[in-house]
Amino acid sequence: MRRIDLYFTPSEVSEEEISGKPVVVVDVLRASASIIRALKNGSRGIIPTQSVGEATELAQSLGRENVLLCGERGGKRIDGFDLGNSPKEFTRKMVDDKILIFATTNGSRAIAGAQGARSVLVGSFLNSKALLDYLSKLDSDLAIICAGKLGRFALEDAVAGGMFVDHLRAEELNDGAMAAHTLYQKYSQDIVGMLRSSSHGRYLIKLGYEEDIPLCGRLNSVNLIPSLEEGKLVRLARDR
Amino acid sequence: MRRIDLYFTPSEVSEEEISGKPVVVVDVLRASASIIRALKNGSRGIIPTQSVGEATELAQSLGRENVLLCGERGGKRIDGFDLGNSPKEFTRKMVDDKILIFATTNGSRAIAGAQGARSVLVGSFLNSKALLDYLSKLDSDLAIICAGKLGRFALEDAVAGGMFVDHLRAEELNDGAMAAHTLYQKYSQDIVGMLRSSSHGRYLIKLGYEEDIPLCGRLNSVNLIPSLEEGKLVRLARDR
Repeated sequence: MRRIDLYFTPSEVSEEEISGKPVVVVDVLRASASIIRALKNGSRGIIPTQSVGEATELAQSLGRENVLLCGERGGKRIDGFDLGNSPKEFTRKMVDDKILIFATTNGSRAIAGAQGARSVLVGSFLNSKALLDYLSKLDSDLAIICAGKLGRFALEDAVAGGMFVDHLRAEELNDGAMAAHTLYQKYSQDIVGMLRSSSHGRYLIKLGYEEDIPLCGRLNSVNLIPSLEEGKLVRLARDR
Repeated sequence: MRRIDLYFTPSEVSEEEISGKPVVVVDVLRASASIIRALKNGSRGIIPTQSVGEATELAQSLGRENVLLCGERGGKRIDGFDLGNSPKEFTRKMVDDKILIFATTNGSRAIAGAQGARSVLVGSFLNSKALLDYLSKLDSDLAIICAGKLGRFALEDAVAGGMFVDHLRAEELNDGAMAAHTLYQKYSQDIVGMLRSSSHGRYLIKLGYEEDIPLCGRLNSVNLIPSLEEGKLVRLARDR
């Protein structure tokens, strides 16, 4: 590819610049991992929403019994929702054949912020190989949007974004991509340690979600790519 | 100090979090260097403004002949202004004993965004030692606000911010401070090369401002700290 632009927060993204490009959205702790596991375990699709209100209204209009409401505020499951945002909650028993409506603080918004892109894919350490195999064959520029945390830089998303930069060949990188690459090189030998030391990781440990951290750092453990199609995240059909 | 929080863009800053703390604003290319040189060369003070309109109105009310209007849009001097934003323009002949009104795209806004802080200081590679000597004696938390470029991450500001993190002892760093520190370690041996390779550096070279780049990367060349006092940047009196 000619160039990779990486943005540390959704607010850095301009619609014009990502227009027509494939976009990878990265929310390592924890939306990317929850979405990937839900699809692995049979979910028919995940609809990202930007607010709790939007999620509950959508559930009403689709029929509350036909969907699972999933998401968090302040890291914790939203009152009245079926699931929170711990990847371990998205078991086959729970999500198989289900439509999920997803309202997370950072990841859902980052996905919504990628409107106008040619395609919107979800990346994380879990599906690193699947995504890199796919991206390396694309003959186009690439944009990587880190979800960040509450509109701010998040180390774990930058390191995962930098992993993609490290493995792809590009003639030109923006400052975000250059910096993310440096951060990946620094932390690549101990991804789980980096997750634990990050602000978000420390926050999750304090809330009692320590078990989620190694789950979110398990490199190349799931061979699928979530792709936004008609407002719903589904498995990308890679043979097309 | 107990903790250092570093923000890559002004939009990441919350007024609440910087309240009561000393704040260092970093805009390496080029506002920090222009401000530092203006004070070194005798300016009585620099008033940062957030828009061209605010700057020209203020000039009118203070008397157009009593002030110098300085600043850029798209890197170039604003029409009708006396000076642009090249540090080399801020000579003694030009600025001695003058009040400057300053309207730059990123730096002025970052300074304005630091309202509520205990103090607002301007940092760059030029005044690294003066600033570090001063900060190392402070017994408080510190916030570093990188101006960035058009609301986005800028590598050069992150590296300069990381230099301050590297030289100060802190028990806790936010993700931005951790990342900036890593970036400083990567680029510390070739600051001017890093400036040239950054998005902003390449942009300035294209506009014909290549000479400004080594001027902005000259480590520890000016022994003063710009400090915001009653809306005006003046030399910090360090013996108080």
